This record gives sequence, C-alpha cells and structure tokens, in this order.
Amino acid sequence: MAYDAQNQREFKIVGTRAKRPDGIDKVTGKALYGADMYAPGMLYGRILRSPHAHARIVSIDASAALALNGVKAVVTHADLTRPNDEYLADIADNCLARDKALYDGHAVAAVAAVSRSVAKAAIRLIKVEYEVLPHVTDVDEAMKPGAPVVQEGRADESVGADMSQNVTSHFEFGHGDLDAGFAKADKIIERSFKTAATHQGYIEPHACLASLGPDGRGDLWCCTQGQFMVRSVCAPLLGMDASQLKVTASEIGGGFGGKTTVFIEPVALALSRKSGRPVKIVMTREEVFRATGPTVSSSTDVKIGMTKDGRITAGQARLRYQGGAFPCGTVEFGAQSAFAAYDLEAVRTLGWNVMTNRPKEVAYRAPGAPMAIYAVESVVDELCQDLGLDPLDVRLKNAARKGTLSSYGPTFNEIGLVATLEAAKAHPHYTAPLGENQGRGLSCGFWFNFGGNTCVSLNIDSDGTISVVEGNPDIGGSRASISMMAAEELGVPLDKVRTVITDTNSIGYNDVTDGSRVTFAVGLATIKAARAAIKEMCARVAKIWGIDEEAVIWEDGAAKPSGPNAGDFDPMTLAEIAAISDNTGGPIAGHHEVNADGAGVSFGVHLVDTEVDPETGTTKVVRYTIFQDAGKAVHPDYVEGQMQGGAVQGIGWALNEEYIYGEDGRLQNPGFLDYRVPVASDLPSIETVILEIPNPGHPYGVRGVGETPIVPPLAAIANAVSRATGVRMTELPMSPPKLLKAMSDKG
Amino acid sequence: MAYDAQNQREFKIVGTRAKRPDGIDKVTGKALYGADMYAPGMLYGRILRSPHAHARIVSIDASAALALNGVKAVVTHADLTRPNDEYLADIADNCLARDKALYDGHAVAAVAAVSRSVAKAAIRLIKVEYEVLPHVTDVDEAMKPGAPVVQEGRADESVGADMSQNVTSHFEFGHGDLDAGFAKADKIIERSFKTAATHQGYIEPHACLASLGPDGRGDLWCCTQGQFMVRSVCAPLLGMDASQLKVTASEIGGGFGGKTTVFIEPVALALSRKSGRPVKIVMTREEVFRATGPTVSSSTDVKIGMTKDGRITAGQARLRYQGGAFPCGTVEFGAQSAFAAYDLEAVRTLGWNVMTNRPKEVAYRAPGAPMAIYAVESVVDELCQDLGLDPLDVRLKNAARKGTLSSYGPTFNEIGLVATLEAAKAHPHYTAPLGENQGRGLSCGFWFNFGGNTCVSLNIDSDGTISVVEGNPDIGGSRASISMMAAEELGVPLDKVRTVITDTNSIGYNDVTDGSRVTFAVGLATIKAARAAIKEMCARVAKIWGIDEEAVIWEDGAAKPSGPNAGDFDPMTLAEIAAISDNTGGPIAGHHEVNADGAGVSFGVHLVDTEVDPETGTTKVVRYTIFQDAGKAVHPDYVEGQMQGGAVQGIGWALNEEYIYGEDGRLQNPGFLDYRVPVASDLPSIETVILEIPNPGHPYGVRGVGETPIVPPLAAIANAVSRATGVRMTELPMSPPKLLKAMSDKG
Repeated sequence: MAYDAQNQREFKIVGTRAKRPDGIDKVTGKALYGADMYAPGMLYGRILRSPHAHARIVSIDASAALALNGVKAVVTHADLTRPNDEYLADIADNCLARDKALYDGHAVAAVAAVSRSVAKAAIRLIKVEYEVLPHVTDVDEAMKPGAPVVQEGRADESVGADMSQNVTSHFEFGHGDLDAGFAKADKIIERSFKTAATHQGYIEPHACLASLGPDGRGDLWCCTQGQFMVRSVCAPLLGMDASQLKVTASEIGGGFGGKTTVFIEPVALALSRKSGRPVKIVMTREEVFRATGPTVSSSTDVKIGMTKDGRITAGQARLRYQGGAFPCGTVEFGAQSAFAAYDLEAVRTLGWNVMTNRPKEVAYRAPGAPMAIYAVESVVDELCQDLGLDPLDVRLKNAARKGTLSSYGPTFNEIGLVATLEAAKAHPHYTAPLGENQGRGLSCGFWFNFGGNTCVSLNIDSDGTISVVEGNPDIGGSRASISMMAAEELGVPLDKVRTVITDTNSIGYNDVTDGSRVTFAVGLATIKAARAAIKEMCARVAKIWGIDEEAVIWEDGAAKPSGPNAGDFDPMTLAEIAAISDNTGGPIAGHHEVNADGAGVSFGVHLVDTEVDPETGTTKVVRYTIFQDAGKAVHPDYVEGQMQGGAVQGIGWALNEEYIYGEDGRLQNPGFLDYRVPVASDLPSIETVILEIPNPGHPYGVRGVGETPIVPPLAAIANAVSRATGVRMTELPMSPPKLLKAMSDKG
Repeated sequence: MAYDAQNQREFKIVGTRAKRPDGIDKVTGKALYGADMYAPGMLYGRILRSPHAHARIVSIDASAALALNGVKAVVTHADLTRPNDEYLADIADNCLARDKALYDGHAVAAVAAVSRSVAKAAIRLIKVEYEVLPHVTDVDEAMKPGAPVVQEGRADESVGADMSQNVTSHFEFGHGDLDAGFAKADKIIERSFKTAATHQGYIEPHACLASLGPDGRGDLWCCTQGQFMVRSVCAPLLGMDASQLKVTASEIGGGFGGKTTVFIEPVALALSRKSGRPVKIVMTREEVFRATGPTVSSSTDVKIGMTKDGRITAGQARLRYQGGAFPCGTVEFGAQSAFAAYDLEAVRTLGWNVMTNRPKEVAYRAPGAPMAIYAVESVVDELCQDLGLDPLDVRLKNAARKGTLSSYGPTFNEIGLVATLEAAKAHPHYTAPLGENQGRGLSCGFWFNFGGNTCVSLNIDSDGTISVVEGNPDIGGSRASISMMAAEELGVPLDKVRTVITDTNSIGYNDVTDGSRVTFAVGLATIKAARAAIKEMCARVAKIWGIDEEAVIWEDGAAKPSGPNAGDFDPMTLAEIAAISDNTGGPIAGHHEVNADGAGVSFGVHLVDTEVDPETGTTKVVRYTIFQDAGKAVHPDYVEGQMQGGAVQGIGWALNEEYIYGEDGRLQNPGFLDYRVPVASDLPSIETVILEIPNPGHPYGVRGVGETPIVPPLAAIANAVSRATGVRMTELPMSPPKLLKAMSDKG
C-alpha cells in the first residue's frame, strides 16, 4: 500500500524489510544492557526483602551489617524523599517499605558493598523486627468488607458498606438504555471469569548503575522503557531537580510494559549518595518475580444479550482488578476496552481497582484490556454457539466502524476492524477441516495506541549522512522504523541514517515507550524534523541560486528550482548541500517537539485451532493466524514480530502462566522453572496478515502495532478449547490439571 | 562591567564566581576519564613502536604474536583505509606507519589481547625487519639541501635549490615598504632565536574504548578535545560513514591543543573490527612523550628598526618551524602573530614548515604564536635597553588599536591592547623595587580566537529546570560559562541549569574545542537557543492570554503582557509555563546551529620579576602579574585560572621544558622526571588583572581567553633574565646549565 496522508506519495523505503540496525549488536554481544556498565570504584548494591505478605516493621538494626568489612552504606525508606504526590509516594514506598511490608518480597533495606558476596552477607546481618499482620491476596476476598486493609486511607470515595477499604478507584463507561437493550434480546448470558496475574517475562532482569554526588548531580544508567520516566520519578525521590539527573537507557532485554516504572533506581541513587561511590544493582530472577511488575489478576462479570440473528442488544461488564499493594488504575483501560469492538446501542462497564498483599501491578502490553476482552469475547462466543451463529458473521454484524460511538466515549475515525474480520473470513484457515479433539476459536482485540510528548532532532553531517536523535528506548524495532521514515522523507538511502536513543539531558522530554506510541509519535516528529531540515536546505540553496525560498522544492533527495525558475539550475543533492554547510551558515538540522495526538486505534482478529489431550488436559496450539490493522507497516518484519510475540505471550497467559500464592501469602513459583512461559516447541508457526488502514493522524498513516496482539489470544484459545472439549473455561490459565478437572466434572 | 551588545543589560549571573559544576565530580573521582570505561568482553590493545628515528619497514611477521594464547587480533597500516585527502592520509600514516617508520616511537603494529600482560608480551613477539635510514631532527639541519628527506613528494612548490625537500609549506604576511622603514630607523637589531619542542603536558594520557561491528556501526569512548573531530577522522580511516560512528568524549584530564587529533582511536577501532570485541587502549607516559603531540621547535630571525623616541619603523621575521614527520602548518599562525601587537607602516613575516624525524607536531595553546612573539618581543626589549626607553612606553607608542591594519591583513575592531598596557603601567608591580640578581621583563601577547561550527540545544523540563546540550569537551570551565549564559538569558537561577556535553550522534556537528572558541561560539549559540525557547514560551503564553505574540515580552524569567495589553495579565514564569507544556503543544526547546564568526582577538601583557642564582644559573620567578583583555569575563575564577595556567606553561617552556634527542635520533627524556614541568614550589602566586573590553561580535561581549596567556611568558621571562644578568638569551629553554654557560661566557 502506498499511502501518504499528505501527498499520496509512493514509498521507497517505508514498507520494505530492511536490515535490522540492532541485529549485529545483539547477536555479537556488543549491545550494552543494564548490567553491562561499570565505573571505577563501583560498589554492589543488594536489597533485603520482606519474607512476610503483610507485616509492620517495628525496627531495623543495620549495625552488624555496617560493621562488616567492605560494607559502605545501608539505606532504608528514611533515605528517600517521600513526595506529596500520591503516585510518587507510592513508588517511594514500593522501592523501600515505609512502616509496613506490604507483600512477600517488598524491599525493606539495601546495602552497598565492595563485592557481591559481601553485599549478600551484609543483608543477612540486618535485623528487622516484624509484627506479622493478616494478609489478603485474592481480589474478590480483598473487596469484601472486613478484609485485611493493605493501606489505610486509600479507599475510593465511592466505597460503601458493601466493599472494603481496599478499593482504591472506580471507573464507569457506556451509553444507552441497558434494560431496554436486554429486553430486546432473544438470549442473555451472564457469566463470571477470573484471570491470574502474569509477569511480563522479559529476559533481562532490572539492572542499573547509579552515581550521585554531594552536589546533587547524578548520573544513572539503567534498563528501562523510559529514561525520562526514570528521571521524573527518581529526581523527586532524591530531592533533586530533573535537569540535574542524567539518565541513560541501556539496550533493553524486553520490557512489555514492565519497565515503565522503577524499583531499584532510587535505591541505587540513595546508596551512591550515602557511600560517595557509584553503585550497581542487578536483580536476581527471584527478585524480578517477587517484587516487580506482574499484571493485575482479575475477576469479571459479563452480561450480554443477543437476538436470534446475532445482533447484540446490550452489553454489561463489571471488572475487579487486583493491583497489589500499589494499584495504578489499570481497570480503567479494561472498562474502556471491554466492548470496544462493538457498535452497541446500550453498553455499560464498571471497574474497580483493588489493593492486595501482592507486588505492585505494572503495565503489561495493552494493560487491562486482555482480561476484559477475554470475558466479553467468551460470552459472545457462547451466545454464537447457543444461537447456532457463525462467530465471524456475528462480529461483522456488530462491528465498530468509522462513525461508531465507542463504548468508552469517542466516536471512531478510520478503523480497520471490519477489514480484519473480512480478511479472517476469507482466509483458508477459517474453513480448514479440524482433527480429532480440536476446536477453532476466534476473538477480536483492541488497543487505543498513544501519542504523547515527543522530541526528535535530526542532524545532517557534512558527509551527507544523517543522525536522528530520539529519546525512547527501542523495544520493538523503532530505531529501524525511525531511520526508515527519516530516509524516506529526506530521499536518501537508508544506510545513510543512524538513529540513536540518547540520554535525558541530550534531548527534550519524551513520554515513556508504551502504549504503542513510538513508531507513531516519534515517527511523526521525525518526519516533521526532516521537513524542517529540508526547509533549511532549500533556504540555503535559494540563497546560493539567488531565487526565492518558495521557488526551491525538495524531490528525490535534492533541492530543485521550480515554478518560473524550473530548469534554471541543476538540482543540489543533500550530500552536496551538506558538504558546503560551513559556508552557508553552519551545520544543518531539523527539530520537532510535540505532544502528539491522532494515534489511531487498532483492531485485530486472532484465529486459533487447539487440540486438547483428553488424558492429560494438555492444550496444544496447532494453528494460529493473526489479522491486524497495523496502519502503514513501516517495517513488516518487525510488525509481524510484534504480532507473533504478542500472541505468544497471550498463549502463555491463556494456558500456563500464573502467580501462585500459598496460604502464607508467599509467592510459590518465583522462577522460570515453575512459572511456565511458552517455548518454541510449544508453538506452531504463527501466520500473520497485516491490514494497512491508514491512520489519518499520521503523515504516513502509521498506527501502533505492539499491544493489540496480546489481547485476543486469551478468548480465542478459551473459545477454541470450549469448542474442542465442550467445556467453557472461565478461569485462566487453563492449565492441564484445571482443564482435566473441568472435563471430568462435565463427564 | 555590565555590557550587553544587544541591550546594555545589567548581568545578574554572568560575571559572578559561581560554584564550579565539575568540581565535586573531579575531586571525588566520580568523573569518568578516558581509561575509566569498560565493556563486557573487552580486550586490551597495545602498540608496537619503532626504536628507530627513520627506517624502512621491510617486513612485519606477527605469526608468533597471533599464536600466543589470548591474542585476538594484530593490525598494521594495511588494516586502515588510507584516504586520498592528504590531511587524513597523514593521520593514517601516523597512527600506523605505512612503508617507513618516521620517528622514534612511530606506531608500527598493534595487538588486542585478553589482558594487558598478554598484550605486552605479544608485541614483543612481533618481528619487524627494519632498514635503518639516515635521520634529521633539527629544523635548520632539515632545511639544508642534502638533508635526509623524511617523506618524498611533500615539498612546497616554492622550494628551490637552497632548501631541502623537507620544507612542506610556506607563508608570507605583511605590508608597507620595509627598506624605507629600516632607513628611517635610528637603531636596527637583527637576531636569531631558537625554541625547543615542548609537550602539552596534560596529566591524562590518551585512552579510548572502541567497538566496531561487522555492520560498520561503531561506538567510541575517548579522551579528546573534539568528539566530532575524532569522528571526522576515524570514520574515513575505517571506511565508515560519519553518522555510523558514535563518539563520546570522556571527561578530559588536560588537552591544551594536544588532544585535537587522534593517535590510538583508529587503531582501537581496527582492532575491534578485526577481533569482534571491544578494545581499550591506554597510552603509557612514555608513549605520550614519544608519539603524541609536542609543539613545533623553532628557529627564527627577527629584524626591527626603531627611532630614538621609540617608534618602530619596520619589522621583519623569518620563521622556521620543525613539525616532525607530519607538519600541519602551524608556522602560519606564527607568521601572523609575530607583530600583531604593533601598528606598523612596514612589516613582513615569512614562515616555513619543515619535516623532521620527530613526532608529528600538534597544536599547543595558541599554536605557533609564543615562539614568534618571543623572538619579536626580545628584540623590542633589546632596542628599548639600547635606546634607554621605557619598554611599556615604547609598546604603548606602537600599540595596535581599533582601526590598525594588522600585520597579517585584517583591520582590528575593538581591541584591548592599549588598556592592558595602561593597566600594567599603573600597577604597583611595574614600579616596585627589585632585589639583587633580579630583573623585570615584560611582553605583549596575542591570539586570534576562533568561532566555527557550533550546535546547541536547550530543553526546558516540565519542572522548570533546564538542560543545555552542547558538543564541545569542557577543557577550561565551559560547562560553567554556558550554564551561566543560559541562566542569564532565561532569567532563572543558575542551579536550575545543567549543561552536558553529548556524543556525536546526539547533536549537530561542532568544531573541536580549540582556538579559545568555546565560551565565545557555544555561548553565542546558547544565547540564541535560549532566545528561541523564549520566543516559543511567549507564543504559548500569547495563545493562553489570547493576545498577539508580539505583545508578550520576556523579563526576569517570566512572560509579561506589554504595549496595549500591559497589566492585563499576571506574568507567567518559566516554571509555570513549563509545568503546563503538555497542554500547550508539548516540550519546549530552543536550538541553534551556526558557523560562528566575530570572535574578537585578545591581547595580554605579562610583567615578571626573575631572580637568577649566579652560582647555579637557576632562574626563580619571584613575581608575576598578568593583564589581559578577556572581553566579558563570564566566570572570573575560570578566566583567572586560564591566565595563570597559560603563564605557568609558558614559564616551563621558557625555563626548563624541552625534547632532548640523542645522536641516534631517539628521545632521551620521555617522562616527567626528565622532562621538567613547573610544580607549585617553582612558582609565585600569579596575580591577574582582567580587562573587559567587550567583543562587539558576541551578545555579551565575550572573547576567547585561554590561549593568549601562554604567549607572553617566553619573552617576558627572557627579558627579565636579560635585565637580571646582562645576558640576552636567544635559545629556550633557559635551563640552568645553558644560562650558567652564557653568563660565564660573558664573564
């Protein structure tokens, strides 16, 4: 597809499968990750964590640790500045527990020592006196009046006598007359679902190297999805001005939303300030599981009415999200997403965020959406089964399209849901025969996609090569897509461009890499920066030629005279203009700063065949096809990779992944042996079909891509399993013992 | 002095002695220098150097080295791309000798190995077969017809039968009728002078860490005065595009011009490419002396005529500069500077650059000027002595001033020479009594000061603090002065600003930190970038207020309504505007790219009292006062430090420092024990008097500061010694044995 919202140009570079700029660095080990940075005189930090799910900290005695040879500093919560802002205060309290340890693994104190082994020995010498308190880890239990209260004084204003003080916020969306809608239905299904907390499962544990001087100037190297987010959070926690803390993001070994907040960085900075030395902290895998970001677990009630011919007359969902000790409101996205795929006359969603004695919830790819849509799409599927309707036809009949008043408020612009549904219907997969014990499921998926604050500079070197500077860690190939958009706009070969992700003090503020915002927003800013550089080049050439700036146009990487001056001068290429920039005013650059809006929402449809072993309850995914509206796919390889990667994470979530807490409130499976993510042998080759419905909000029509594909797998697989076994699974993961029990209960 | 060329504003921050932003980092060891960077899997590089002053390389056999366990790569000249450009080809040939080793210490091959000790052992195993050739190390010998020719085919077109092929370039400056001028003189003195090569003497040896992948993307960390210079040189030597090589400058432990080229960086990159691993190279002190940048040694003839009343009627100088194996033309600056302090009717200078079998000449603080002005100022002093004239009065009588046609071409704008001379004359030092064996000398000094290519970005963070991004290593306090100018222009407290020096891919091209250009040019660009940010802030506030952009002015760090709207709205401070930037369009920044001109020349006068021990010939500097036109002194502490530091280096040059070559052409004193730089106990407290004659080419009136102060000490001390001893020393350094001999010869 050749689309340019501005001028319908044919793309030359955008849309090709160019060589990956990060490939060699990653496979040769050259890429520097969080743990790969060293500094002379560096100390090793280690964190002491609570063994209790809920306990008052009576006292902390670090004297024995401090007496150990090689120990240079011990910090506790008292070494952080606790901001008035609730969001920041929560992060401070999570990084180092204040008066109570709120979950198993909650950080209580930290040491810095001359070696890892000394640090490890030292934390064992810290004596913490705890008063153990009753705990709660399940969302429904936590909501009940009388449940142990995780943090006092945080209850939402709406909380009445029917709920506990653990409910911290609530959200409500929808429109139309629900009662009237349900009255029109021929069939109504109401059902409850539960999903487990899952971890983002990034390969690289959190790691950082911090240096903070007594002058209040700090430098921080860390693995993160947003160096500016790290700065915005850490600076106030250390009582610093933002500009005094320079944060550099390392290469990132996976984030998926889990690296959109901080856990160890303020601790390392505090240890550095106290010890006067650089301090490195690298988490163990166990720490990652016990104390970093799982997504929420959820409990959801869905009620949907449908006519015999498949028209949805009304939809309602009540969502309860378990956000750990410091919920951040993800249920809002769940409540917004639940019915986003449908054009409904009557719809209503309610959501509650609930505190428990578990680690703080953190964003995980399309945060909040998969569990909500899992519940809705399961009920839609069951209605189709009960009414004997084709599930694709039903979705097509009810599909949101341009002009639809969405279930969460806005009216949709150009969207690709119908196109993806039609592509799925036309695909051979949809009508392929199924084998024994096999079932076919499908689900729609949705994600908003974000824009946000974005700064890009584009510098043209005198040899005619281009450096693009941006501020968003590359978690999904954005260096490739940004370079491609810059080369496309400037009209130069791709290998003349290098995009680098710089530190917080070398470019203006950028929102975190999340919400599938980067290719859209950074791409937009890059195109605008390139246009600014083109304008400057045309102005310089106009001066050389002695003609009006307006008479110089940019075409095929060169300035050309136009209008009455057309043909008067030979075109000057970018390289020729760059080579003489010394004499025409100095270096040539383009810059763009923007709070980008206009990110287009994205829809996908996943089609999956599963085979369930009736003896063991094991589910095997035998065929998987993804249809997704990506907007313009800047680099199809990465787009397909995002789609496949999202699906794989969704498969894990649907079938195996879960946080397992014991009666004692402690996490029982903090490692990849017991927390089972899908590996290559678990998976079929995942087919992808990219639909390119241009986003009118971007000059090249780009939408976000990376999050939508984690949304459909939960329901698609549940629906496939249901059709394979006749058992409707309402709890994820559908691990073999659970599925076997459900099948045997049914008989 | 409160001067603003634009609006005569009173400065609030500029001109104060603010806390040094680099102080804590440097004294606590937090600052990261060239050798302080590590990378996982890093190898250690080491360089094999020629033991001969001049030798053909017949063969290099690295097989035994490569067979040593732990050796990962060996490189020679063949591993570099030799560009067609002569400047770059010289650097390639200097980094790794091509067909001949051209001086003692010339790099011949290099190894990368898993440890320093293995690398050291490995270079001993490399067998190089040399054919030793005749050599020449003295400039006058090298110029003679028949001298050994260092490199064939490099002779200047002007070379006739009276000169050897070692003369690589010549320059000529001046105006007026010399014969007529000398005819008017009452006294003519003609005298020849020699100065030794001296080293910049920076404390930090060259060090770098290079990583270059098979995809042609490289990263380089190094100690340099210019990361962009390093990139511009290394990229072609490795056959790369500039944008593909990201160079980051470390903190710098002194440069003084000596780090304006590369020695080890292309070698480390070639070793990294060949080994597939990051490679670190750190020079030893011996390597620094044998193979990095001394200044030229010189041989100069000066002839000056003067009337009885002290009017200089004509001046002539012939300068011969020894530039080692790869001269770079420094004599041009010498020929331009020699008579720059004087308003002359007839003046002529000629300069020749000469190749010898010595290390490549490299810039050293006001390169080329000190030795030329030493010769001229010595003869002027001798004329004053012979004619019984006051040396300050004579200089005042002949001083260049605004409107003077300079000896090198341009007509001077506002300059401060007369002011500095008058300040010296009025200072108590000039008339203070002298003790036994003491003499008082003075000399003028001059430096052009540069402008050049410069890029600055200024980002305003949402907490109202400011990050200034620039691309010039801070060798003399520029982070302080740049932050101060940004704070001044924006109207915010200084501690709200942090200036960082970023890598080559995070900002546009910047010329190297040299020529005293940074405070002038980067300061200029910073002020312009701040003004761009102010314009953007005023535009956003205008939109909020619903008034014309032109009706919003910036005053005291806030936007205010003006004209007909004055008083209609409360001012909005920068912090208030920054806090809501999300809602007014996104992050706020200002950028400026420029090839800056308008750097004002600078003059200084040094007054020195020396005491010579008649028994030992040892000269002690007993009092020293510097008068210099600094333009606006942004941070007086740093300005004074530059003046004092320059004087100290000049004192070393005058009295002790010299490269001593043996008959075999090998350097005999490659270490700080035998190459004697002044230490604290050798020096008096050096008094400084800053004159602030504003430079009309800069909004705040800033000139360069750092180079002028190394120019006068050579002559000032020689003149003082002459007046103390009655012996006119025409060769530097005036080390005790030489001075003792001269005194004893005189009797």
